[in-house]
Amino acid sequence: MTSHQYGLILAGGRGTRFWPRSRRANAKQVLSLFGDRSLIQQTVDRLRPVLPPERIWILTNDYLRAEIVRQLPEVPQRQILAEPAQRNTAPAIGLAAQIIQSLDPEAVMGVFPADHVIAKPREYVRLIRPAFRAAQEGKIAVLGIQPRWPETGYGYIEFPKGIEAGSRVAIPVLRFREKPDEATAKRYLKSGNFSWNAGMFFWRTSVLLDALRRYLPKTASLLASLPAFGSKGFSAQLAKTFPLCENISIDYAVLERASNVVGFLTGDIGWNDVGSWNAVYELHKQDASRNAVRADALLKDSSGNYVDASGKLVVLLGVRDLVIVDTPDALLVADRNRAQQVGDMVKMLEQARREELL
Amino acid sequence: MTSHQYGLILAGGRGTRFWPRSRRANAKQVLSLFGDRSLIQQTVDRLRPVLPPERIWILTNDYLRAEIVRQLPEVPQRQILAEPAQRNTAPAIGLAAQIIQSLDPEAVMGVFPADHVIAKPREYVRLIRPAFRAAQEGKIAVLGIQPRWPETGYGYIEFPKGIEAGSRVAIPVLRFREKPDEATAKRYLKSGNFSWNAGMFFWRTSVLLDALRRYLPKTASLLASLPAFGSKGFSAQLAKTFPLCENISIDYAVLERASNVVGFLTGDIGWNDVGSWNAVYELHKQDASRNAVRADALLKDSSGNYVDASGKLVVLLGVRDLVIVDTPDALLVADRNRAQQVGDMVKMLEQARREELL
Repeated sequence: MTSHQYGLILAGGRGTRFWPRSRRANAKQVLSLFGDRSLIQQTVDRLRPVLPPERIWILTNDYLRAEIVRQLPEVPQRQILAEPAQRNTAPAIGLAAQIIQSLDPEAVMGVFPADHVIAKPREYVRLIRPAFRAAQEGKIAVLGIQPRWPETGYGYIEFPKGIEAGSRVAIPVLRFREKPDEATAKRYLKSGNFSWNAGMFFWRTSVLLDALRRYLPKTASLLASLPAFGSKGFSAQLAKTFPLCENISIDYAVLERASNVVGFLTGDIGWNDVGSWNAVYELHKQDASRNAVRADALLKDSSGNYVDASGKLVVLLGVRDLVIVDTPDALLVADRNRAQQVGDMVKMLEQARREELL
Repeated sequence: MTSHQYGLILAGGRGTRFWPRSRRANAKQVLSLFGDRSLIQQTVDRLRPVLPPERIWILTNDYLRAEIVRQLPEVPQRQILAEPAQRNTAPAIGLAAQIIQSLDPEAVMGVFPADHVIAKPREYVRLIRPAFRAAQEGKIAVLGIQPRWPETGYGYIEFPKGIEAGSRVAIPVLRFREKPDEATAKRYLKSGNFSWNAGMFFWRTSVLLDALRRYLPKTASLLASLPAFGSKGFSAQLAKTFPLCENISIDYAVLERASNVVGFLTGDIGWNDVGSWNAVYELHKQDASRNAVRADALLKDSSGNYVDASGKLVVLLGVRDLVIVDTPDALLVADRNRAQQVGDMVKMLEQARREELL
């Protein structure tokens, strides 16, 4: 039975908030922000107890594919797919589901983001097994993260009252909720039956494709019109067809409308979506003055800084709460509390057509 | 008569406060901190109306000599001397005086620091001519800078009451005063008859050598024992003899004790000794948010910063009053108001034996 389980890692994002380290061809998921392994390598490592690399599929883009192939020699190259265009998660997952289904009609697929951190992978993997089992039985299963603060930047999943975190028994999902305002987020946190939606879903490929035919018929029929995966005309036809698909997330297209959704609520698995340099800073080991340093550095009267540089000495004198990231062609010095806005700086570079820095 | 006038540019300092741009082999005086010309090039340029390059002598050290030769092709190479050891200004000036005197017994010498900025060189040169003339007549002449604030970091020169700035008539110097405390500096500023001592002196080489024989006999006789300049044994003997000289400034050794000292008080010549990155910042053109940028840079919500980098883009986001200086092997990020302490960081690098960065 296990041999029909597949993992789909979504790795098409850019992660512009990690500029100047992140570039189109070197996005967040392939960066080694913690230790020596990149986030996508850590994702594959973490899934290994439930999914061997030969049953991992990866969806990325043309900029990143070569680097991902390089970083993951254990994943068969033909399973590392590049989307011809960015069309959000519904067409991407639909495409992968259709290909895998064509190769294994019994396939059950788990969807995993490529760029999250999970400090306690064993706790995490414990819940993946029952999620696959629920999917095997025809359900759509989701893995929700127990909220630790009233975050307004994530979507939420509403469960019935009185659920137990870490339980391996599938719980019916009542509703998916969009990013809340702060008061609502606080209510969610307090009520105890809401989880963060971290984008981890499980289903039979046949179930997902049925749902797409029902809720997103145009995209479903475009994908169905593709020649067989691996055949001569596949890539050329995909390049023409894929951009015509609807630009919509799987959450909106399917999950919020499907009725047979169940979920699992994690306990403390140390999940973090690593949304900015500030998150990287907070996840790093810090010295007595709360500096996190990934560089050859000399600090005096400086506190709360994140420093990331290689091949040079960084000297800080009397500075506080900065993010300093140095690369051969770009240097970022930012207020750490404004690290979320680094993406805006990248937009400015795009507007200025500084392609060499993107 | 003019043809007996010589300039001696003292260029042996390190300027560690300009790290990471300043290094032993690339000290402050050879850096292009303003425009395309280095400070020593600007010094030679500024003197040109009174002293042609063929009558300029330069005292530096072994680390810097090659770069100075490269930057000043118009100055005869044999006039660019390297001290075998740092022994402060008295032995250095004595050595140059003795060499020049041996080549021209009628020589009159002006001493000029290599690393100052003078925004109004014409006003400055106006006073150099009468200073040379006073020296020609056997006096020791000094050029004092009218103080603009109660600086405690400079020595002062005391003139009689009621002197007139910018006058081309020599004024007797009453006393040299050491760096004052703040109350004293304020009194000096208010009294109107004190000037900053900027290290610009004029004398016949014979007068200076007489004074050294009188006030610093050991150094005088060590220097007198050297073989003829340009002879085969000169350099080898200098390397042995020079380190034996007293380590003392010309101010202490001669000026404070001599009786025949006269002075000239500059009006506003835009003098600045460029003591730190903060001084560089203040001398630079600033944008509407008071940033001074010598780099390809993109700034958002950032003010009062000095940025110096080449070959890369620097992005600032929400930061204030920083000095950011990037070089291929070192990056400095400092509170601009603590730029004076950059030299301490260099001392820490010396203690850590990071020779490659010094």
